[in-house]
Amino acid sequence: MTSVAAQHLPYDLTDPYRSLSLNTATTKRWTLAEAVDGAARAGLGAIGLWRDRVHEVGVAAAAKLVADAGLRVSSLCRGGFLTAPGDGQSALDDNRRAIDEAAALGTRELVMVMGGIADRDLAAARARVEERLALLAPYAAERGVRLALEPLHPMFCADRAVISTLAQALTMARPYPAETVGVVVDTFHLWWDPLLEDQIAQAGAEGRISSYQVCDWLNPMAADPLLSRGMMGDGVIDFATIGGWVRAAGYRGDVEVEIFNAAVWEADGHSVIETMKQRYRELVLPALVG
Amino acid sequence: MTSVAAQHLPYDLTDPYRSLSLNTATTKRWTLAEAVDGAARAGLGAIGLWRDRVHEVGVAAAAKLVADAGLRVSSLCRGGFLTAPGDGQSALDDNRRAIDEAAALGTRELVMVMGGIADRDLAAARARVEERLALLAPYAAERGVRLALEPLHPMFCADRAVISTLAQALTMARPYPAETVGVVVDTFHLWWDPLLEDQIAQAGAEGRISSYQVCDWLNPMAADPLLSRGMMGDGVIDFATIGGWVRAAGYRGDVEVEIFNAAVWEADGHSVIETMKQRYRELVLPALVG
Repeated sequence: MTSVAAQHLPYDLTDPYRSLSLNTATTKRWTLAEAVDGAARAGLGAIGLWRDRVHEVGVAAAAKLVADAGLRVSSLCRGGFLTAPGDGQSALDDNRRAIDEAAALGTRELVMVMGGIADRDLAAARARVEERLALLAPYAAERGVRLALEPLHPMFCADRAVISTLAQALTMARPYPAETVGVVVDTFHLWWDPLLEDQIAQAGAEGRISSYQVCDWLNPMAADPLLSRGMMGDGVIDFATIGGWVRAAGYRGDVEVEIFNAAVWEADGHSVIETMKQRYRELVLPALVG
Repeated sequence: MTSVAAQHLPYDLTDPYRSLSLNTATTKRWTLAEAVDGAARAGLGAIGLWRDRVHEVGVAAAAKLVADAGLRVSSLCRGGFLTAPGDGQSALDDNRRAIDEAAALGTRELVMVMGGIADRDLAAARARVEERLALLAPYAAERGVRLALEPLHPMFCADRAVISTLAQALTMARPYPAETVGVVVDTFHLWWDPLLEDQIAQAGAEGRISSYQVCDWLNPMAADPLLSRGMMGDGVIDFATIGGWVRAAGYRGDVEVEIFNAAVWEADGHSVIETMKQRYRELVLPALVG
């Protein structure tokens, strides 16, 4: 299993891609084996896994594939969807399975997308998230897995995630130890937030930054907002500024690139990774290096 | 000119549409004369005007049309777009004209949409807004017009408005007297905000709520996010809860309905107004009435 220390190697311009992680959603058409191979050949240090890709081969085989390739698993995506009315039992069961899978894959970070609203009662949906998080946190703690709460852009509040800001995620995380509940900093979801600098600093001070995920905000947006994520440099996000805040907050973990974008998905996976490396080195890494 | 007192009549279930205002963008195909006539025939108390509709007939003629119909002008839309690099002179000149027009039309509230970013420097764009607001506020104050800062949904941060939350708008408004710089509470833009209740209370305590605008958030969203606004009841927003916060904050002004939606625009204006009245009475007004 990859140790936490190994995930927190310093960034190094002589080995610039050591902390760069390919999220499997970026090369959506690739199988897990293809993505692992592509990432390893490209000299990346890590890979971020989606559960559907893992399930295609089984957890044990996926863990072996990644380990044999010498990659870290920067995060497992995703648990969550805790907002549905009712007893939530099936969601809780699925989240416990996701925690087990994260442990078996050797990653500490389980990305949690909280779910949208089934009716008009946003406050009740948020309350259900808090209640169910309390049921899952001990289970995660016992397995050395951290529930990484991901605030999604407010345009997804209705259909996908009732946590919309880093401040809100931190408030939900705060009742728990930092090693049990963390937060995800994803530039696409958070770049607009006028409180972002302070909240990243706060998340860092609490030791709760589970993951730094980078991709750009396209302007104009894609017709499907979900697919409006772009390669770094193709949109309006200032990675130097946000990266500087992440560095100042003490984060030294992997940097994951997760892009949902029809054109990226159509392109050859290897060329996507080459572009990703180039943009990372030019736009993202300089702000992270001391 | 309509007095401020007249804009703050209490809500009254025996005259339920007295404080209901038709924004001219909701009946986009109508001329100003048609919209004024439609609103007056339907027994509404007010109309919210877009400047392009006003310019079609001229400010003086528009003011006379509205006054002859016995309507208040709840707001004029819009000033702003203060984020462009350079000296901003043409935007400042246009905003001064908008302030003059608001005064001539007898409304205190000039809705300000702040503009997006021309490059990747969000902080600089926000700083330009603050600088230019300082240049406009004295001009507005002399004419009895309030600059009503409208936070737009964060999905418009790149292309339309770098003010994304009510808290942020209040921070920008605070250097000025409450009668000179206010804020707009629009349900579509703000419903997701976990800090909304507190911020509405704060805006009310400061006397800065310029306008309460209602329309719904459609789920799924329309392909063009700008047109994803829906008739109250057609989406996921809980108008009882937000309206209760607005009432508790002391707001007693007009309630404006501004819907950008292709289907609403295609429909007959009179039937749109009838639906709007029904939904207002069922979903919006009860929370506002004491």
